[in-house]
Amino acid sequence: MKLDTRDQRFQQAAADLGYSFDGEIKVGGNYAPVVRDGELVYVSGQIPRVGDEVVVVGAAGVDVSLEQARLAARVGAMRALALVSRVAGSLSDVVAVPRMTVFVRSGPSFTQQSEVADAASDLLAEVLGPVGVHTRTSVGVAQLPKGATVEIDFIFRIKPAG
Amino acid sequence: MKLDTRDQRFQQAAADLGYSFDGEIKVGGNYAPVVRDGELVYVSGQIPRVGDEVVVVGAAGVDVSLEQARLAARVGAMRALALVSRVAGSLSDVVAVPRMTVFVRSGPSFTQQSEVADAASDLLAEVLGPVGVHTRTSVGVAQLPKGATVEIDFIFRIKPAG
Amino acid sequence: MKLDTRDQRFQQAAADLGYSFDGEIKVGGNYAPVVRDGELVYVSGQIPRVGDEVVVVGAAGVDVSLEQARLAARVGAMRALALVSRVAGSLSDVVAVPRMTVFVRSGPSFTQQSEVADAASDLLAEVLGPVGVHTRTSVGVAQLPKGATVEIDFIFRIKPAG
Repeated sequence: MKLDTRDQRFQQAAADLGYSFDGEIKVGGNYAPVVRDGELVYVSGQIPRVGDEVVVVGAAGVDVSLEQARLAARVGAMRALALVSRVAGSLSDVVAVPRMTVFVRSGPSFTQQSEVADAASDLLAEVLGPVGVHTRTSVGVAQLPKGATVEIDFIFRIKPAG
Repeated sequence: MKLDTRDQRFQQAAADLGYSFDGEIKVGGNYAPVVRDGELVYVSGQIPRVGDEVVVVGAAGVDVSLEQARLAARVGAMRALALVSRVAGSLSDVVAVPRMTVFVRSGPSFTQQSEVADAASDLLAEVLGPVGVHTRTSVGVAQLPKGATVEIDFIFRIKPAG
Repeated sequence: MKLDTRDQRFQQAAADLGYSFDGEIKVGGNYAPVVRDGELVYVSGQIPRVGDEVVVVGAAGVDVSLEQARLAARVGAMRALALVSRVAGSLSDVVAVPRMTVFVRSGPSFTQQSEVADAASDLLAEVLGPVGVHTRTSVGVAQLPKGATVEIDFIFRIKPAG
Protein backbone atom coordinates (compact mmCIF):
# COMPACT_ATOMS: atom_id res chain seq x y z
CA MET A 1 0.00 0.00 0.00
CA LYS A 2 1.28 3.42 -0.92
CA LEU A 3 0.66 5.86 1.88
CA ASP A 4 -0.03 9.06 0.06
CA THR A 5 -1.08 11.34 2.85
CA ARG A 6 0.26 12.19 6.26
CA ASP A 7 -2.98 11.07 7.85
CA GLN A 8 -2.60 7.66 6.19
CA ARG A 9 0.98 7.38 7.35
CA PHE A 10 -0.12 8.29 10.88
CA GLN A 11 -2.77 5.55 10.81
CA GLN A 12 -0.20 3.07 9.52
CA ALA A 13 2.21 4.00 12.33
CA ALA A 14 -0.60 3.44 14.85
CA ALA A 15 -1.39 0.07 13.32
CA ASP A 16 2.28 -0.91 13.42
CA LEU A 17 2.41 -0.05 17.12
CA GLY A 18 -0.81 -1.96 17.74
CA TYR A 19 -2.32 1.01 19.57
CA SER A 20 -5.30 3.18 18.78
CA PHE A 21 -5.07 6.95 19.16
CA ASP A 22 -8.67 7.53 18.13
CA GLY A 23 -10.13 7.82 21.62
CA GLU A 24 -10.35 10.89 23.77
CA ILE A 25 -6.98 12.13 24.96
CA LYS A 26 -7.80 13.04 28.52
CA VAL A 27 -6.01 15.31 30.90
CA GLY A 28 -6.85 15.88 34.52
CA GLY A 29 -7.31 19.33 35.96
CA ASN A 30 -7.54 22.88 34.70
CA TYR A 31 -5.37 22.63 31.63
CA ALA A 32 -5.73 21.48 28.06
CA PRO A 33 -3.86 18.86 26.05
CA VAL A 34 -3.52 21.38 23.26
CA VAL A 35 -3.93 25.15 22.84
CA ARG A 36 -4.10 26.89 19.51
CA ASP A 37 -2.55 30.33 19.58
CA GLY A 38 -2.98 31.82 16.14
CA GLU A 39 -1.06 29.59 13.77
CA LEU A 40 0.86 27.91 16.57
CA VAL A 41 -0.39 24.79 18.30
CA TYR A 42 1.13 24.11 21.71
CA VAL A 43 0.90 20.50 22.90
CA SER A 44 1.09 19.63 26.59
CA GLY A 45 3.73 17.18 27.78
CA GLN A 46 2.72 13.73 26.52
CA ILE A 47 3.58 10.56 28.36
CA PRO A 48 3.18 7.18 26.62
CA ARG A 49 -0.39 6.69 27.71
CA VAL A 50 -2.76 4.64 25.58
CA GLY A 51 -6.30 4.80 26.88
CA ASP A 52 -5.94 4.54 30.65
CA GLU A 53 -2.61 2.76 30.64
CA VAL A 54 0.90 4.19 30.67
CA VAL A 55 2.58 1.64 28.45
CA VAL A 56 6.21 2.30 29.35
CA VAL A 57 7.07 3.03 32.98
CA GLY A 58 10.43 3.18 34.74
CA ALA A 59 13.87 4.74 34.49
CA ALA A 60 15.82 4.27 31.27
CA GLY A 61 18.99 2.33 31.86
CA VAL A 62 17.68 0.83 35.09
CA ASP A 63 14.11 -0.43 34.72
CA VAL A 64 13.70 -0.15 30.97
CA SER A 65 15.96 -0.63 27.96
CA LEU A 66 16.87 1.90 25.30
CA GLU A 67 14.43 0.19 22.94
CA GLN A 68 11.58 0.45 25.44
CA ALA A 69 12.40 4.10 26.07
CA ARG A 70 12.35 4.70 22.31
CA LEU A 71 8.92 3.09 22.15
CA ALA A 72 7.78 5.47 24.90
CA ALA A 73 9.02 8.43 22.84
CA ARG A 74 7.27 7.18 19.74
CA VAL A 75 3.97 6.70 21.56
CA GLY A 76 4.21 10.16 23.14
CA ALA A 77 4.84 11.70 19.73
CA MET A 78 1.91 9.75 18.25
CA ARG A 79 -0.36 11.26 20.89
CA ALA A 80 0.88 14.72 19.96
CA LEU A 81 0.21 14.10 16.27
CA ALA A 82 -3.28 12.83 17.13
CA LEU A 83 -3.95 16.04 19.07
CA VAL A 84 -2.68 18.32 16.32
CA SER A 85 -4.69 16.42 13.76
CA ARG A 86 -7.87 17.10 15.72
CA VAL A 87 -7.15 20.80 16.12
CA ALA A 88 -6.09 21.30 12.52
CA GLY A 89 -8.53 18.84 10.95
CA SER A 90 -5.71 16.99 9.21
CA LEU A 91 -1.98 16.56 9.56
CA SER A 92 -1.74 17.97 6.04
CA ASP A 93 -2.24 21.41 7.61
CA VAL A 94 1.01 21.21 9.62
CA VAL A 95 3.58 23.54 8.04
CA ALA A 96 6.41 23.42 10.61
CA VAL A 97 7.48 22.04 13.98
CA PRO A 98 9.59 24.74 15.61
CA ARG A 99 10.17 22.93 18.90
CA MET A 100 10.13 19.53 20.56
CA THR A 101 11.36 18.96 24.13
CA VAL A 102 11.98 15.41 25.32
CA PHE A 103 12.31 14.53 29.00
CA VAL A 104 13.67 11.05 29.60
CA ARG A 105 13.43 9.53 33.07
CA SER A 106 17.02 8.37 33.40
CA GLY A 107 19.02 6.18 35.68
CA PRO A 108 22.26 7.65 37.04
CA SER A 109 24.48 6.49 34.19
CA PHE A 110 22.05 6.61 31.26
CA THR A 111 23.28 9.18 28.73
CA GLN A 112 21.40 8.13 25.57
CA GLN A 113 18.66 10.75 25.82
CA SER A 114 19.36 11.77 22.22
CA GLU A 115 18.91 8.21 21.00
CA VAL A 116 15.56 8.05 22.82
CA ALA A 117 14.47 11.35 21.32
CA ASP A 118 15.49 10.12 17.85
CA ALA A 119 12.49 7.78 17.92
CA ALA A 120 10.17 10.79 18.16
CA SER A 121 12.13 12.74 15.56
CA ASP A 122 12.02 9.77 13.19
CA LEU A 123 8.25 9.53 13.58
CA LEU A 124 7.84 13.20 12.65
CA ALA A 125 10.01 12.67 9.56
CA GLU A 126 8.12 9.53 8.61
CA VAL A 127 4.65 11.03 8.97
CA LEU A 128 5.18 14.71 8.15
CA GLY A 129 8.11 14.54 5.75
CA PRO A 130 10.35 17.60 5.43
CA VAL A 131 8.02 19.92 7.39
CA GLY A 132 8.58 17.63 10.39
CA VAL A 133 12.14 18.90 10.84
CA HIS A 134 12.28 20.54 14.27
CA THR A 135 14.58 21.88 16.93
CA ARG A 136 14.98 19.59 19.86
CA THR A 137 16.10 19.53 23.46
CA SER A 138 16.47 16.19 25.21
CA VAL A 139 17.37 15.88 28.87
CA GLY A 140 17.44 13.20 31.56
CA VAL A 141 15.15 13.82 34.51
CA ALA A 142 14.72 12.22 37.92
CA GLN A 143 11.03 11.37 37.66
CA LEU A 144 7.97 11.87 35.50
CA PRO A 145 4.23 11.80 36.17
CA LYS A 146 2.90 8.25 36.79
CA GLY A 147 6.50 7.03 36.67
CA ALA A 148 6.46 7.28 32.86
CA THR A 149 9.74 6.81 31.03
CA VAL A 150 9.34 9.73 28.62
CA GLU A 151 7.42 13.00 28.43
CA ILE A 152 7.47 15.14 25.27
CA ASP A 153 6.01 18.53 24.44
CA PHE A 154 5.78 20.36 21.13
CA ILE A 155 5.07 23.57 19.30
CA PHE A 156 3.60 23.03 15.83
CA ARG A 157 2.77 25.63 13.19
CA ILE A 158 -0.34 25.03 11.10
CA LYS A 159 -1.92 26.76 8.13
CA PRO A 160 -3.91 29.89 8.92
CA ALA A 161 -7.59 29.16 9.57
CA GLY A 162 -9.99 29.79 6.73
CA MET B 1 -17.42 39.84 48.87
CA LYS B 2 -17.90 39.31 45.20
CA LEU B 3 -14.60 39.45 43.38
CA ASP B 4 -15.51 40.97 40.06
CA THR B 5 -12.16 41.41 38.45
CA ARG B 6 -9.12 39.25 37.93
CA ASP B 7 -6.98 41.77 39.78
CA GLN B 8 -9.31 41.52 42.79
CA ARG B 9 -9.21 37.74 42.68
CA PHE B 10 -5.41 37.88 42.52
CA GLN B 11 -5.32 40.13 45.60
CA GLN B 12 -7.68 37.78 47.41
CA ALA B 13 -5.48 34.80 46.57
CA ALA B 14 -2.46 36.69 47.93
CA ALA B 15 -4.36 37.52 51.11
CA ASP B 16 -5.41 33.87 51.51
CA LEU B 17 -1.78 32.80 51.23
CA GLY B 18 -0.73 35.50 53.68
CA TYR B 19 1.98 36.72 51.33
CA SER B 20 2.43 40.01 49.53
CA PHE B 21 3.48 40.08 45.90
CA ASP B 22 3.55 43.88 45.72
CA GLY B 23 7.30 44.28 46.24
CA GLU B 24 9.98 44.20 43.62
CA ILE B 25 10.47 40.81 42.06
CA LYS B 26 14.23 40.66 41.84
CA VAL B 27 16.44 38.53 39.71
CA GLY B 28 20.20 38.34 39.86
CA GLY B 29 22.34 38.72 36.78
CA ASN B 30 21.90 39.69 33.17
CA TYR B 31 18.38 38.48 32.60
CA ALA B 32 14.87 39.72 33.22
CA PRO B 33 11.97 38.26 35.17
CA VAL B 34 9.72 38.98 32.22
CA VAL B 35 10.17 39.90 28.56
CA ARG B 36 7.38 41.21 26.37
CA ASP B 37 7.73 40.07 22.78
CA GLY B 38 4.87 41.61 20.83
CA GLU B 39 1.69 40.24 22.36
CA LEU B 40 3.52 37.42 24.13
CA VAL B 41 4.89 37.80 27.63
CA TYR B 42 7.58 35.30 28.59
CA VAL B 43 8.06 34.79 32.33
CA SER B 44 11.34 33.47 33.73
CA GLY B 45 11.29 30.35 35.90
CA GLN B 46 9.69 31.31 39.21
CA ILE B 47 10.61 29.62 42.46
CA PRO B 48 8.40 30.13 45.53
CA ARG B 49 10.26 33.18 46.76
CA VAL B 50 8.49 35.81 48.78
CA GLY B 51 10.68 38.83 49.39
CA ASP B 52 14.09 37.39 50.18
CA GLU B 53 12.87 34.02 51.40
CA VAL B 54 12.25 30.83 49.44
CA VAL B 55 9.21 29.59 51.34
CA VAL B 56 9.25 25.94 50.26
CA VAL B 57 12.60 24.16 49.97
CA GLY B 58 13.39 20.48 49.58
CA ALA B 59 12.57 17.43 47.48
CA ALA B 60 8.92 16.45 47.12
CA GLY B 61 8.26 13.05 48.62
CA VAL B 62 11.37 13.22 50.80
CA ASP B 63 11.72 16.59 52.52
CA VAL B 64 8.33 18.09 51.72
CA SER B 65 4.80 16.75 51.37
CA LEU B 66 2.54 16.91 48.34
CA GLU B 67 0.62 19.72 50.03
CA GLN B 68 3.78 21.76 50.61
CA ALA B 69 4.86 21.18 47.02
CA ARG B 70 1.44 22.37 45.85
CA LEU B 71 1.89 25.51 47.94
CA ALA B 72 5.24 26.06 46.22
CA ALA B 73 3.55 25.78 42.82
CA ARG B 74 0.82 28.20 43.83
CA VAL B 75 3.33 30.77 45.10
CA GLY B 76 5.42 30.46 41.93
CA ALA B 77 2.33 31.01 39.81
CA MET B 78 1.32 34.02 41.93
CA ARG B 79 4.71 35.58 41.23
CA ALA B 80 4.18 35.04 37.52
CA LEU B 81 0.74 36.66 37.65
CA ALA B 82 2.22 39.60 39.57
CA LEU B 83 4.85 40.02 36.85
CA VAL B 84 2.37 39.85 33.99
CA SER B 85 0.10 42.28 35.75
CA ARG B 86 2.92 44.83 35.92
CA VAL B 87 3.82 44.42 32.26
CA ALA B 88 0.23 44.50 31.03
CA GLY B 89 -1.08 47.00 33.57
CA SER B 90 -3.83 44.62 34.64
CA LEU B 91 -4.56 40.91 34.54
CA SER B 92 -7.69 41.83 32.58
CA ASP B 93 -5.41 42.23 29.55
CA VAL B 94 -4.39 38.56 29.55
CA VAL B 95 -6.10 36.81 26.64
CA ALA B 96 -4.45 33.36 26.70
CA VAL B 97 -1.80 31.25 28.42
CA PRO B 98 -0.27 29.06 25.70
CA ARG B 99 2.33 27.37 27.89
CA MET B 100 3.25 26.56 31.48
CA THR B 101 6.20 24.31 32.39
CA VAL B 102 6.46 22.99 35.94
CA PHE B 103 9.69 21.55 37.31
CA VAL B 104 9.23 19.70 40.60
CA ARG B 105 12.27 18.78 42.66
CA SER B 106 11.42 15.16 43.27
CA GLY B 107 12.61 12.34 45.45
CA PRO B 108 13.34 9.04 43.71
CA SER B 109 9.83 7.60 44.07
CA PHE B 110 7.73 10.77 43.87
CA THR B 111 5.51 10.61 40.77
CA GLN B 112 2.82 13.18 41.60
CA GLN B 113 4.29 16.00 39.52
CA SER B 114 0.90 16.48 37.84
CA GLU B 115 -0.83 16.87 41.20
CA VAL B 116 1.73 19.53 42.17
CA ALA B 117 1.23 21.34 38.88
CA ASP B 118 -2.53 21.24 39.38
CA ALA B 119 -2.13 23.81 42.14
CA ALA B 120 -0.73 26.29 39.62
CA SER B 121 -3.31 25.36 37.00
CA ASP B 122 -6.11 25.83 39.54
CA LEU B 123 -4.80 29.28 40.41
CA LEU B 124 -4.87 30.33 36.76
CA ALA B 125 -8.45 29.09 36.46
CA GLU B 126 -9.47 30.82 39.66
CA VAL B 127 -7.93 34.19 38.80
CA LEU B 128 -8.14 34.31 35.01
CA GLY B 129 -11.20 32.18 34.34
CA PRO B 130 -11.49 30.47 30.95
CA VAL B 131 -8.59 32.37 29.35
CA GLY B 132 -6.34 30.75 31.97
CA VAL B 133 -6.60 27.36 30.24
CA HIS B 134 -3.09 26.42 29.16
CA THR B 135 -0.89 23.62 27.92
CA ARG B 136 1.34 22.16 30.55
CA THR B 137 4.43 20.05 30.99
CA SER B 138 5.33 18.85 34.46
CA VAL B 139 8.49 16.91 35.19
CA GLY B 140 10.50 15.78 38.20
CA VAL B 141 14.01 17.18 38.43
CA ALA B 142 17.04 16.44 40.57
CA GLN B 143 17.60 19.93 41.95
CA LEU B 144 16.45 23.53 41.61
CA PRO B 145 18.06 26.90 42.36
CA LYS B 146 18.30 27.60 46.12
CA GLY B 147 17.01 24.08 46.72
CA ALA B 148 13.47 25.23 45.90
CA THR B 149 10.78 22.58 45.57
CA VAL B 150 9.18 23.98 42.42
CA GLU B 151 10.12 26.20 39.49
CA ILE B 152 7.54 27.29 36.91
CA ASP B 153 7.80 29.27 33.70
CA PHE B 154 5.09 30.64 31.43
CA ILE B 155 4.16 32.18 28.14
CA PHE B 156 1.17 34.51 28.34
CA ARG B 157 -0.62 36.33 25.53
CA ILE B 158 -1.89 39.82 26.28
CA LYS B 159 -3.96 42.37 24.36
CA PRO B 160 -2.07 44.38 21.76
CA ALA B 161 -0.64 47.60 23.16
CA GLY B 162 -2.57 50.76 22.42
CA MET C 1 41.24 46.80 20.17
CA LYS C 2 37.79 48.29 20.28
CA LEU C 3 35.20 45.68 19.45
CA ASP C 4 32.59 47.66 17.59
CA THR C 5 30.26 44.98 16.39
CA ARG C 6 28.54 42.01 17.95
CA ASP C 7 30.23 39.72 15.45
CA GLN C 8 33.63 41.05 16.53
CA ARG C 9 32.76 40.58 20.18
CA PHE C 10 31.65 37.02 19.41
CA GLN C 11 34.97 36.28 17.69
CA GLN C 12 36.84 37.76 20.63
CA ALA C 13 34.88 35.59 23.07
CA ALA C 14 35.76 32.53 20.96
CA ALA C 15 39.43 33.51 20.95
CA ASP C 16 39.38 34.02 24.71
CA LEU C 17 37.95 30.52 25.16
CA GLY C 18 40.51 29.12 22.75
CA TYR C 19 37.81 27.34 20.76
CA SER C 20 36.64 27.78 17.21
CA PHE C 21 32.94 27.84 16.41
CA ASP C 22 33.49 28.21 12.67
CA GLY C 23 33.06 24.54 11.77
CA GLU C 24 29.86 22.74 11.00
CA ILE C 25 27.60 22.35 14.00
CA LYS C 26 26.39 18.82 13.53
CA VAL C 27 23.37 17.09 14.95
CA GLY C 28 22.50 13.45 14.54
CA GLY C 29 19.09 12.35 13.35
CA ASN C 30 15.98 13.90 11.93
CA TYR C 31 16.13 17.28 13.56
CA ALA C 32 17.87 20.59 13.00
CA PRO C 33 20.19 22.62 15.20
CA VAL C 34 18.13 25.69 14.38
CA VAL C 35 14.72 26.41 12.84
CA ARG C 36 13.64 29.82 11.66
CA ASP C 37 9.93 30.40 12.16
CA GLY C 38 9.15 33.84 10.80
CA GLU C 39 11.16 36.30 12.88
CA LEU C 40 11.81 33.74 15.61
CA VAL C 41 14.85 31.48 15.57
CA TYR C 42 14.56 28.38 17.73
CA VAL C 43 17.86 26.79 18.74
CA SER C 44 18.07 23.13 19.75
CA GLY C 45 19.53 22.23 23.12
CA GLN C 46 23.27 22.89 22.97
CA ILE C 47 25.78 20.92 24.96
CA PRO C 48 29.37 22.18 25.29
CA ARG C 49 30.62 20.39 22.21
CA VAL C 50 33.53 21.78 20.24
CA GLY C 51 34.09 19.84 17.06
CA ASP C 52 33.67 16.20 18.06
CA GLU C 53 34.48 16.67 21.72
CA VAL C 54 32.18 17.48 24.62
CA VAL C 55 34.54 19.69 26.59
CA VAL C 56 32.80 19.58 29.98
CA VAL C 57 31.29 16.28 31.15
CA GLY C 58 30.00 15.24 34.55
CA ALA C 59 27.65 16.30 37.32
CA ALA C 60 28.08 19.77 38.80
CA GLY C 61 29.01 19.61 42.45
CA VAL C 62 30.29 16.05 42.13
CA ASP C 63 32.47 15.58 39.07
CA VAL C 64 32.90 19.19 38.01
CA SER C 65 33.23 22.50 39.81
CA LEU C 66 31.01 25.55 39.54
CA GLU C 67 33.64 27.20 37.36
CA GLN C 68 33.75 24.24 34.97
CA ALA C 69 29.96 24.17 34.79
CA ARG C 70 29.99 27.89 34.00
CA LEU C 71 32.45 27.21 31.18
CA ALA C 72 30.05 24.57 29.86
CA ALA C 73 27.24 27.11 29.87
CA ARG C 74 29.37 29.68 28.08
CA VAL C 75 30.42 27.21 25.38
CA GLY C 76 26.80 26.09 24.87
CA ALA C 77 25.71 29.71 24.49
CA MET C 78 28.58 30.37 22.04
CA ARG C 79 27.30 27.52 19.89
CA ALA C 80 23.84 29.03 19.92
CA LEU C 81 25.18 32.44 18.89
CA ALA C 82 27.18 30.80 16.09
CA LEU C 83 24.00 29.12 14.84
CA VAL C 84 21.92 32.29 14.97
CA SER C 85 24.66 34.19 13.21
CA ARG C 86 24.56 31.74 10.32
CA VAL C 87 20.77 31.88 10.01
CA ALA C 88 20.57 35.66 10.30
CA GLY C 89 23.80 36.46 8.46
CA SER C 90 25.09 38.51 11.37
CA LEU C 91 24.47 38.84 15.08
CA SER C 92 23.62 42.46 14.37
CA ASP C 93 20.22 41.22 13.15
CA VAL C 94 19.24 39.84 16.58
CA VAL C 95 16.60 42.12 18.10
CA ALA C 96 15.55 40.16 21.21
CA VAL C 97 16.07 36.93 23.14
CA PRO C 98 12.68 36.02 24.60
CA ARG C 99 13.74 32.73 26.19
CA MET C 100 16.73 30.75 27.39
CA THR C 101 16.39 27.44 29.26
CA VAL C 102 19.41 26.03 31.06
CA PHE C 103 19.59 22.40 32.18
CA VAL C 104 22.47 21.70 34.57
CA ARG C 105 23.44 18.11 35.31
CA SER C 106 23.53 18.37 39.07
CA GLY C 107 24.74 16.30 41.97
CA PRO C 108 22.27 15.76 44.81
CA SER C 109 23.24 18.83 46.81
CA PHE C 110 24.21 21.23 44.01
CA THR C 111 21.83 24.21 44.04
CA GLN C 112 23.82 26.82 42.08
CA GLN C 113 22.02 26.31 38.76
CA SER C 114 21.42 30.08 38.57
CA GLU C 115 25.12 30.80 38.98
CA VAL C 116 25.89 28.36 36.16
CA ALA C 117 23.25 29.97 33.94
CA ASP C 118 24.70 33.42 34.71
CA ALA C 119 27.70 32.51 32.57
CA ALA C 120 25.42 32.16 29.54
CA SER C 121 23.45 35.28 30.43
CA ASP C 122 26.66 37.25 30.81
CA LEU C 123 27.82 36.14 27.38
CA LEU C 124 24.60 37.36 25.80
CA ALA C 125 25.00 40.72 27.51
CA GLU C 126 28.65 40.95 26.49
CA VAL C 127 28.07 40.09 22.84
CA LEU C 128 24.57 41.40 22.15
CA GLY C 129 24.34 44.28 24.61
CA PRO C 130 20.87 45.36 25.80
CA VAL C 131 18.96 43.24 23.25
CA GLY C 132 20.53 40.18 24.88
CA VAL C 133 18.31 40.55 27.96
CA HIS C 134 16.18 37.41 28.15
CA THR C 135 13.89 35.38 30.35
CA ARG C 136 15.51 32.35 31.84
CA THR C 137 14.70 29.07 33.48
CA SER C 138 17.52 27.08 35.05
CA VAL C 139 16.99 23.64 36.56
CA GLY C 140 19.10 20.75 37.81
CA VAL C 141 18.66 17.49 35.93
CA ALA C 142 19.76 13.92 36.51
CA GLN C 143 21.58 13.36 33.24
CA LEU C 144 22.26 14.94 29.86
CA PRO C 145 23.20 13.55 26.44
CA LYS C 146 26.84 12.33 26.30
CA GLY C 147 27.06 13.00 30.03
CA ALA C 148 27.43 16.74 29.33
CA THR C 149 27.32 19.11 32.28
CA VAL C 150 25.02 21.70 30.69
CA GLU C 151 22.43 21.86 27.92
CA ILE C 152 20.87 25.18 26.85
CA ASP C 153 18.16 26.06 24.38
CA PHE C 154 17.00 29.44 23.11
CA ILE C 155 14.42 31.43 21.24
CA PHE C 156 15.86 34.47 19.48
CA ARG C 157 14.02 37.17 17.54
CA ILE C 158 15.73 38.54 14.45
CA LYS C 159 14.96 41.33 11.99
CA PRO C 160 12.38 40.50 9.32
CA ALA C 161 13.94 39.07 6.18
CA GLY C 162 14.34 41.38 3.22
